[in-house]
Amino acid sequence: MPREVTAFSNTTVKRIRSLRDKKTRREEGLFLAEGLRIITEARDSGMLPEILAFSRQGAAHPLAAEIIEAAEAQGAEAIEVPADLLSKMSGKDNPQMLLGAFRPPSTGLAAINRNSAPLWIVAQSLRDPGNIGTILRTGDAVAAGGLILIDDSADPYSVEAVRASMGAIFTQKVAMARWDEFLPWLRSGTGQLVGTSLKTDTDYLGADYQQPCFLLIGNESQGLPADYEAACDLLVKMPMLGRADSLNAAVAAAVMAFHVRASWKLAGL
Amino acid sequence: MPREVTAFSNTTVKRIRSLRDKKTRREEGLFLAEGLRIITEARDSGMLPEILAFSRQGAAHPLAAEIIEAAEAQGAEAIEVPADLLSKMSGKDNPQMLLGAFRPPSTGLAAINRNSAPLWIVAQSLRDPGNIGTILRTGDAVAAGGLILIDDSADPYSVEAVRASMGAIFTQKVAMARWDEFLPWLRSGTGQLVGTSLKTDTDYLGADYQQPCFLLIGNESQGLPADYEAACDLLVKMPMLGRADSLNAAVAAAVMAFHVRASWKLAGL
Repeated sequence: MPREVTAFSNTTVKRIRSLRDKKTRREEGLFLAEGLRIITEARDSGMLPEILAFSRQGAAHPLAAEIIEAAEAQGAEAIEVPADLLSKMSGKDNPQMLLGAFRPPSTGLAAINRNSAPLWIVAQSLRDPGNIGTILRTGDAVAAGGLILIDDSADPYSVEAVRASMGAIFTQKVAMARWDEFLPWLRSGTGQLVGTSLKTDTDYLGADYQQPCFLLIGNESQGLPADYEAACDLLVKMPMLGRADSLNAAVAAAVMAFHVRASWKLAGL
Repeated sequence: MPREVTAFSNTTVKRIRSLRDKKTRREEGLFLAEGLRIITEARDSGMLPEILAFSRQGAAHPLAAEIIEAAEAQGAEAIEVPADLLSKMSGKDNPQMLLGAFRPPSTGLAAINRNSAPLWIVAQSLRDPGNIGTILRTGDAVAAGGLILIDDSADPYSVEAVRASMGAIFTQKVAMARWDEFLPWLRSGTGQLVGTSLKTDTDYLGADYQQPCFLLIGNESQGLPADYEAACDLLVKMPMLGRADSLNAAVAAAVMAFHVRASWKLAGL
């Protein structure tokens, strides 16, 4: 049975709170997801939390009760805390009724089966965890296989990324690799690497996208390094009709991903 | 000539800092933009700051020097401050060398000339200033006329929105209106109101978009109210192939805006 905890200094409360810190997440091998909706998404994707904190009101929800029971049956620690303490634990003004700490699956490239999906998103050195979460959410919408994070990236398991993913952190595969690991892995099988660039005349609307397609998105402020662009099978240009010469990274990923999907639909693929 | 200021307690320093607060922005009728790039964008769009703060290094840049001189010639107050003070004023770890306080243009619907652009983005009750800035940036890229913010919206002139806009706050028109002002205004002229909805079978790829097209984007968590959807001339569905039933608001706006542009291009418009 879950224990009732009211002290901010309680070990489990402190442990959950500490997962807001990247270093602790890495040491503990756990990350935080907030809210019944996203934790249900996790359960439906086959993942249960190892630690759970919930308010009395939260536990009263049948779905929450089911998840708490299932998690405890697998050995999870579950604590009931007052709503105001839960709110402090999540750091959100608008408190969630349920928090869960999950163990991330392997983020190695070996865990990626490229033929399990026609489309993958590859992002290089993203700095903004919100962009990472938003790209995961978009990936879910276009039925991408997942997101491969290249080089030094913000943490996809940060609270901000998990929130922005709206549950897609549990439905999309996440891999992390250096470029010099990624490229040999990519070339060890089929796959078209597609980059967006200002240095090509190929309009993104007229290009031929092959499956599995790997969409390569550059860092927010620098874009793709020249040698990364040179390694692409296809470079396409998104028209910039105004004064700016670039899009937000998550926006660029989404416009490309939806267009690639649309082009396949038109081609009957 | 600019004055050198070193004290955190200096009136102008405090005044610039206070613009990070929404209420003060409204009272002062000023907002903050940071960095040479965005302030150059402003100048190129015909806007000069009324207050300027810069580091010695910042003022050494020829473009910055030109802007400082032009702004002072129009009566702007310009202060030179140490780099660490400038960094505190912007609240950014990675300090900009130049900060400017600008007076926003009118945000009434009367300032919108709908026939000046084929595409406008209309967003209802957006909560996240980052989304507003990102939508402005996308609007610039697709040569939209601007962004009309409906009902209770986050502040498009907040530091976060201005940053995310990457300068588009100066190139896109911004209007704010209640729905019951907007709808009569829209119907007083030509214009197709297009909403995205899960409650239609019309795929966004097959629909016919008319100019000027007003893309209506719903609030981040609630989407569009039923009566707002009912007022649309066209409802389209974006396919959701995964588990989620919605996209990030800025992503939805971008995918739609790029697709509408693409459909016109194919039609030779």
